[in-house]
Amino acid sequence: MTNSGEPIKVALLGCGTVGTEVVRLLREQADDLTARIGAPVELVGIAVRRPHKHTDVPAELLTTDAAALVAGEADVIVEVIGGIDPARGLLTSALREGKAVVTANKALLAEHGGELFAAADASGADLYFEAAVAGAIPLLRPLRESLAGDRITRVMGIVNGTTNYILSAMDATGSGYGETLEEASRLGYAEADPTADVDGFDAAAKAAILASLSFHTRVTASDVYREGIASVTASDIAAASLLGRTVKLLAICERVLGEDGTESVSVRVHPAMIPRTHQLASVNGAFNAVYVEAEAAGQLMFYGPGAGGAPTASAVLGDLVAVARNKVLGGRGPRESAYADLPVRPMGETLTAYHISLDVDDQPGVLTQVAAMFAEHGVSIAAVRQEGREGESKAASLVVVTHMAPDEALRSTVDKIAGLPIVREVAAVMRVEGEQL
Amino acid sequence: MTNSGEPIKVALLGCGTVGTEVVRLLREQADDLTARIGAPVELVGIAVRRPHKHTDVPAELLTTDAAALVAGEADVIVEVIGGIDPARGLLTSALREGKAVVTANKALLAEHGGELFAAADASGADLYFEAAVAGAIPLLRPLRESLAGDRITRVMGIVNGTTNYILSAMDATGSGYGETLEEASRLGYAEADPTADVDGFDAAAKAAILASLSFHTRVTASDVYREGIASVTASDIAAASLLGRTVKLLAICERVLGEDGTESVSVRVHPAMIPRTHQLASVNGAFNAVYVEAEAAGQLMFYGPGAGGAPTASAVLGDLVAVARNKVLGGRGPRESAYADLPVRPMGETLTAYHISLDVDDQPGVLTQVAAMFAEHGVSIAAVRQEGREGESKAASLVVVTHMAPDEALRSTVDKIAGLPIVREVAAVMRVEGEQL
Repeated sequence: MTNSGEPIKVALLGCGTVGTEVVRLLREQADDLTARIGAPVELVGIAVRRPHKHTDVPAELLTTDAAALVAGEADVIVEVIGGIDPARGLLTSALREGKAVVTANKALLAEHGGELFAAADASGADLYFEAAVAGAIPLLRPLRESLAGDRITRVMGIVNGTTNYILSAMDATGSGYGETLEEASRLGYAEADPTADVDGFDAAAKAAILASLSFHTRVTASDVYREGIASVTASDIAAASLLGRTVKLLAICERVLGEDGTESVSVRVHPAMIPRTHQLASVNGAFNAVYVEAEAAGQLMFYGPGAGGAPTASAVLGDLVAVARNKVLGGRGPRESAYADLPVRPMGETLTAYHISLDVDDQPGVLTQVAAMFAEHGVSIAAVRQEGREGESKAASLVVVTHMAPDEALRSTVDKIAGLPIVREVAAVMRVEGEQL
Repeated sequence: MTNSGEPIKVALLGCGTVGTEVVRLLREQADDLTARIGAPVELVGIAVRRPHKHTDVPAELLTTDAAALVAGEADVIVEVIGGIDPARGLLTSALREGKAVVTANKALLAEHGGELFAAADASGADLYFEAAVAGAIPLLRPLRESLAGDRITRVMGIVNGTTNYILSAMDATGSGYGETLEEASRLGYAEADPTADVDGFDAAAKAAILASLSFHTRVTASDVYREGIASVTASDIAAASLLGRTVKLLAICERVLGEDGTESVSVRVHPAMIPRTHQLASVNGAFNAVYVEAEAAGQLMFYGPGAGGAPTASAVLGDLVAVARNKVLGGRGPRESAYADLPVRPMGETLTAYHISLDVDDQPGVLTQVAAMFAEHGVSIAAVRQEGREGESKAASLVVVTHMAPDEALRSTVDKIAGLPIVREVAAVMRVEGEQL
């Protein structure tokens, strides 16, 4: 415990968009932070790879030796480098030595969170990471603390701004995925290598973190079923639109009660059609929004900027104030809570509902043949819409929305239907969320 | 500090709708709470006025002697009685003796928060009150902790479910205030004596709490400018609707920078017209939603059930877990933060914008006369809409929406306009929020 009044020494690892904002806020809000913490915050060093590139932060604080900075006098390590290495080693050493860690590193937490928490526990150090999920939106603290007396049953949200920007633009313009991604890159909404975003890796890491906190179970990125948005077509979006729906990349974490009474969790990231009237449907562009359902609290929603230098820095500084207060007043923040240790349910066994748009021959008995395939797989149909297609002789469109069924059964049904001679093309297949099916 | 494993003893004051749910959740989630806290929670007593009425809680725990219960063995006092007395004396004694307090009592906090915090500080006790504002929505913890490294500039929200239910119903049906209130009472959405809700006292207490936390300044209920919904007419709602707006009772807390560079805060509760496209416009019935703007974080929104036994109990239990963890692990939660000590700006000096609907004589020069009144008071006009009224000869409707101006100037202008011979009636006057004016 530091004596009140003695400065809290902070080392910053990384100084990109977020780090620069952290430095700025530390300077601009110095007096406020001192009053809120009960001691001043002193930035003792900033580890970067190329010091000459950072002309907007005090030169005397810059170092290329991150390991020495971590091993030095700092009480708190703020990490905004991102990626697994070298962050993993640096933070593990810091925590082992009892230094508090504030990090925005979702990939590291989703892969090696257990290792970091174990290091924190061994020394009694604090590990905070609000900025790792949904940028500035206070979400992890509510899950970890505000809802600590409740049972969270479901978390569903839009947690990746790049993919949301692309899907919003596809919905607005009717354009295809490829050209919309190009446009997003040109405007700076997508990175040069957009893989982590568009293939769902970023959202999957966040889903793992959300599920771990919500269900008191260690869930890693590899436990998360993941589909990106690269296969979403203009035809999918048009098909959704026809039925009053839109397409979003959703991160979904569910507590599932099996027929035998045992609990498990389902954690997945995939594009889904949701009704346009759903509150998540109106979340456009780079914004994030997350629905949380808990047994006693009911349905909650959190909304705000999901990324960006200043918003992410706000979340980092909130955590910094928390760990600094703990240094001044004693005590510590919440530890890893993984006591429930629930198994992760495979995607194939997870209950979902499908929207399937088919181009079929316009002849009697088509619906009967298609319906038989669903029945054969134990899938029941919620709604069917069939109509002739203008300008194409003997062609018809058939749209089927199913009730909930195991994902495996739905996928097999679609495969079988695609092989039917009367089916010319499967125009769109996508899961449906946000309604009772 | 209690040794890990030793039970945390909890006394409950009050056992109405919320208290009953707290007892139920403590029992149903006992194992989870033990795992999350690191020690079991033991309910040692429940103070009520009429024990024979509480057949759904263990009889041996019931007592009518709240003072003795507070003075007894309990480590944590959970207060869900509501109202100023006897809660004020009971909680002050408990805090002085170092017992942690969890309360849902907005009126007490808004009136005597300073006194409670002082008692807590003298002994180092925890004082948590998430349930006091916006029911289950995690809002106070984000303001106090997540945004502790940011500067909150504005909080605007719907924080009273009863008035929101009434205004939503008036908007949907076109009915007047009186009959809608009657209907709400009959359906259980309004209390037998609805004064605290409809006159804005409940929302004002919540606004005081939100402003105190957001601006690190002690704001009491009497600092809050307050107008209820009793004077909102069907004509106001119709006038709002004509221009694509709806009417909501808003709690608004703003940080204001004066022309001389000094800061102050404006805290107010009043009905306002907001655009139907605004996210708060779609918050209907008993739901609450609060917008928070911070310099670095940007715009955040929190949404969920604003009241009800189980949702409020969820917030109480979240706080209970926090204070119990602090007992087990040492340390304590955030204290009162009132260092900024900003002055409260009088309503007359607060900048607002008005919507004014007038029934006027349909003759040349009317607009000139009305416009002259605005100019005389230094108020500039943002939009005007004038049209003849069907079936009334020589009558016209004139709707004026102003730019932002001091509220005092706007009120004087309306008074002067009402006295113009060409003005037959002021059909609707209401502040406009949620757009740039």
